[in-house]
Amino acid sequence: MAINSCKFFSQTESKYACFSFLLLCTILFTSLSAPAQKLSPKKMDAMVARQMLPALEELKDYVSIPNDAVNPEDIQENVQWAEKAFAKRGFQTSVLKNARLPLFLAEMSFPKASKTVMFYFHLDGQPVRADEWQQEDPFRMVLREKGADGAYEDINWNLLQSTINDEWRVFGRSSSDDKGPIIMLLQALDMLQSERQSPPFNIKVVLDPEEEKGSPGLKETLEKHKDRFQADYLIVMDGPMHASNIPTLTLGCRGSVGFTLATYGPITPQHSGHYGNYAPNPGFLLAKVIASMKDEQGRVLVDGFYNGIAFDEEALKVMAAVPDNKEEINARLVIAEEEKVGNNYQESLQYPSLNIRGMQSAVVGKGAATIVPDEAVALLDIRLVPETEAKRMVSLVDSHIQKQGYTVLNHAPTTEERLRYPQIVFMQSSGGTPAFRTDVNAPISVWLRKALANSYKKEPVVIRMMGGTVPVVSFVQALDVPAVLVPLVNVDNNQHSPDENLRLGNLRMGMKTCLSILTSPI
Amino acid sequence: MAINSCKFFSQTESKYACFSFLLLCTILFTSLSAPAQKLSPKKMDAMVARQMLPALEELKDYVSIPNDAVNPEDIQENVQWAEKAFAKRGFQTSVLKNARLPLFLAEMSFPKASKTVMFYFHLDGQPVRADEWQQEDPFRMVLREKGADGAYEDINWNLLQSTINDEWRVFGRSSSDDKGPIIMLLQALDMLQSERQSPPFNIKVVLDPEEEKGSPGLKETLEKHKDRFQADYLIVMDGPMHASNIPTLTLGCRGSVGFTLATYGPITPQHSGHYGNYAPNPGFLLAKVIASMKDEQGRVLVDGFYNGIAFDEEALKVMAAVPDNKEEINARLVIAEEEKVGNNYQESLQYPSLNIRGMQSAVVGKGAATIVPDEAVALLDIRLVPETEAKRMVSLVDSHIQKQGYTVLNHAPTTEERLRYPQIVFMQSSGGTPAFRTDVNAPISVWLRKALANSYKKEPVVIRMMGGTVPVVSFVQALDVPAVLVPLVNVDNNQHSPDENLRLGNLRMGMKTCLSILTSPI
Repeated sequence: MAINSCKFFSQTESKYACFSFLLLCTILFTSLSAPAQKLSPKKMDAMVARQMLPALEELKDYVSIPNDAVNPEDIQENVQWAEKAFAKRGFQTSVLKNARLPLFLAEMSFPKASKTVMFYFHLDGQPVRADEWQQEDPFRMVLREKGADGAYEDINWNLLQSTINDEWRVFGRSSSDDKGPIIMLLQALDMLQSERQSPPFNIKVVLDPEEEKGSPGLKETLEKHKDRFQADYLIVMDGPMHASNIPTLTLGCRGSVGFTLATYGPITPQHSGHYGNYAPNPGFLLAKVIASMKDEQGRVLVDGFYNGIAFDEEALKVMAAVPDNKEEINARLVIAEEEKVGNNYQESLQYPSLNIRGMQSAVVGKGAATIVPDEAVALLDIRLVPETEAKRMVSLVDSHIQKQGYTVLNHAPTTEERLRYPQIVFMQSSGGTPAFRTDVNAPISVWLRKALANSYKKEPVVIRMMGGTVPVVSFVQALDVPAVLVPLVNVDNNQHSPDENLRLGNLRMGMKTCLSILTSPI
Repeated sequence: MAINSCKFFSQTESKYACFSFLLLCTILFTSLSAPAQKLSPKKMDAMVARQMLPALEELKDYVSIPNDAVNPEDIQENVQWAEKAFAKRGFQTSVLKNARLPLFLAEMSFPKASKTVMFYFHLDGQPVRADEWQQEDPFRMVLREKGADGAYEDINWNLLQSTINDEWRVFGRSSSDDKGPIIMLLQALDMLQSERQSPPFNIKVVLDPEEEKGSPGLKETLEKHKDRFQADYLIVMDGPMHASNIPTLTLGCRGSVGFTLATYGPITPQHSGHYGNYAPNPGFLLAKVIASMKDEQGRVLVDGFYNGIAFDEEALKVMAAVPDNKEEINARLVIAEEEKVGNNYQESLQYPSLNIRGMQSAVVGKGAATIVPDEAVALLDIRLVPETEAKRMVSLVDSHIQKQGYTVLNHAPTTEERLRYPQIVFMQSSGGTPAFRTDVNAPISVWLRKALANSYKKEPVVIRMMGGTVPVVSFVQALDVPAVLVPLVNVDNNQHSPDENLRLGNLRMGMKTCLSILTSPI
């Protein structure tokens, strides 16, 4: 079923009639419905079960529109689909232009609501290379069941008419990242509407057109239309749930700043026979600089690196409660021991990290030569937490290197400098992306934890702060609004790879989570 | 003048006549000539001056035959040229076959000589890419003079008929490396013959056909024909003179052994956000391993690395006498300070060196990703001296790494090993090439130092042991004969690059050096 047709009217009827119907829907939803009343978990489950097929049909339809943001005309089609889908649910829709691709905004107010909750999704997807996929067309969603050998095999879509198995999956680009979650919210709104209820808050929905490209236009749109984005809470529905597949809330994410280190040997590579023991090798200097930064357990030795980081009891409780399995994680990474920065996996992500992304001096493998190389380079990144601002952290590292007795330059050394300073370290950093973290005890956190606990009859997994950095951070920072990530899809969804998929059990749970939020008093 | 024609006979005369003439020359040289008598430096200079034009003509002729050993038919032509050239001087020539390219051997005995001196050269050259040369054909030798702007400009070859300027140069592949030195010896023999003298020792001359490819066939030829290579002394005439361009003797060269080090992180690269502070980064481990091996002044910290190395007074005197200019070397390398292994450049080359040839972990520059890499790799080499045998040195490094608390494996770790040992270092070494060094006070060293000192009225530069490794080392080792390198060409001859050249002053000096050796009582 295509959502962008008004099935109640025949083809011969006018556009006007279609528009009138949408208007009627809106009026019904916004005026005639009563504020949401608590629904029992059992009732919710029944409602969601009935909504599975329509949800799958709507997702299939949305997935069918290619959405790599390198093709603006594809993004435009995705925006048009959203305009119709949200208008049908009674939203007022806007397409906010900027120098990049337009941002989609949908808004709906309810008479008795005083607060506004903004939901963030993105409508673009990762690029696809069709030949790497198991299916012919990554945009034609297929239904699959796990076979005896563990591989997923196609099954007929029509089987969904009679039964829906939670372990089946639908495969297609953006089925999980991030069209699946959009559909979950839309379908939850439909369920609410069918109960003649309205949410206890006003809703704004943002669909980012370029999240997979780092959301380059988000900042400009925000500056131009700041008033349109006013909200009390921001809910980001993107990314996978905790590996346990228990309903998850993520209260923040680390930021990041990258920097380059380079050291120098002779001005051009020299014969290692003629100059070995004479020309200084830049690899040894780079190794000394890097080796000085961490101890054998992975703890950073740069003075002040961990300053200001502390956990209160609730935070410690929340982190300890996350059902991470160290043995399972280490076995998957095939490591004997993890670094010893935190007492557990979650704790380790609450600290800034210092990581070498890459390192190079001359050539290893084919083309290697018996030389003293001219240069050695390392790229590092620091994952930031709210207590550790990018500029300060880079400056701490700079000071640390100087304290070891090396000369730090923020530019490639001149001939004069090379002749003057025996141990030069070039260091240059990017601007960085800040971290954000909403307090475990903040009203939005308490509200969402309660909503999920009530519906699932157990506490959600609460991630105090995830380790990675998501582009939406700059949005969160600019709006200065309490934000929480509510991830809905299965962790093994292959979101940036071929064979992206959504587990039907996660579609079911995701719709229930949306319904829980939409009916939870704020 | 082409040497491979008998200019005393017209074209109509038979091959037999030509052969008869060669035979006559041989008889004259070997039987009628008297043992060499000391020639005064002045006399030598006059003889060499007369020989410059014939030498240049013969070199031009030899250079005209392409000699990249990837083309066996070119090497065959070069061997045929040598057969004629040496036969003309009275040598008995042989072409010793092996699975690779044939080795050329020329022998000549003299009745009153009791000792045999073997001369080693190579007839192959580095590959050429004609478009990178200033001249049309790298095998058509051209004469050039330095212009006002410092660049060399073509001058007419016929200018040589009237005057020969030592600062002029001839350009062509193998003009210096190593056909120039072959011609110098041949012309010195001609000079001696014109004086009706014969050398005070028997002569063997080896022309290696694949030196630029690492002399892969040398060992096999030697094993097959060991008796043919018996000699008392070996003189290697290859490579450039000391930068001062003072007559040079090199008494040995360092050997080398390479090894690979690798360290491991997670089994596949992981997101540096999700696993930064948890998954160990292989770059830090590699940096720690490498940083532990050298101090800030470049001295190796591996126990026993410098064991057994000592200099007697003569060695110290010889090394201190080499006119190296530290300021000039450092300015050329653009380094503020050299490593502090030896008290001067020559001394530093008498110790084994530890060098990083290359280093890599993931990617820097284009394609760099925010990951914890799975692996970090470094290629190192140790330049060996006679006191430090390859296997022992590699094992010292192995022990050193283990002493730091790391697990050293000589194979890529299995999954089981990765899960068992937290800090694995993979280490694997090549077989290595040994060093050789002939004592400063050995008879061959004393003989050659005296020969050169007498002719030039000043002490030659004596390099106790050069830093690099030359393929002829395995030949020296296998023959177990006292060997000395007598380099004859200018240091700036571009020997492995486009625009290879020979300075005419060096051709003159080289012929004089050969004449000095050929007339020096043994």
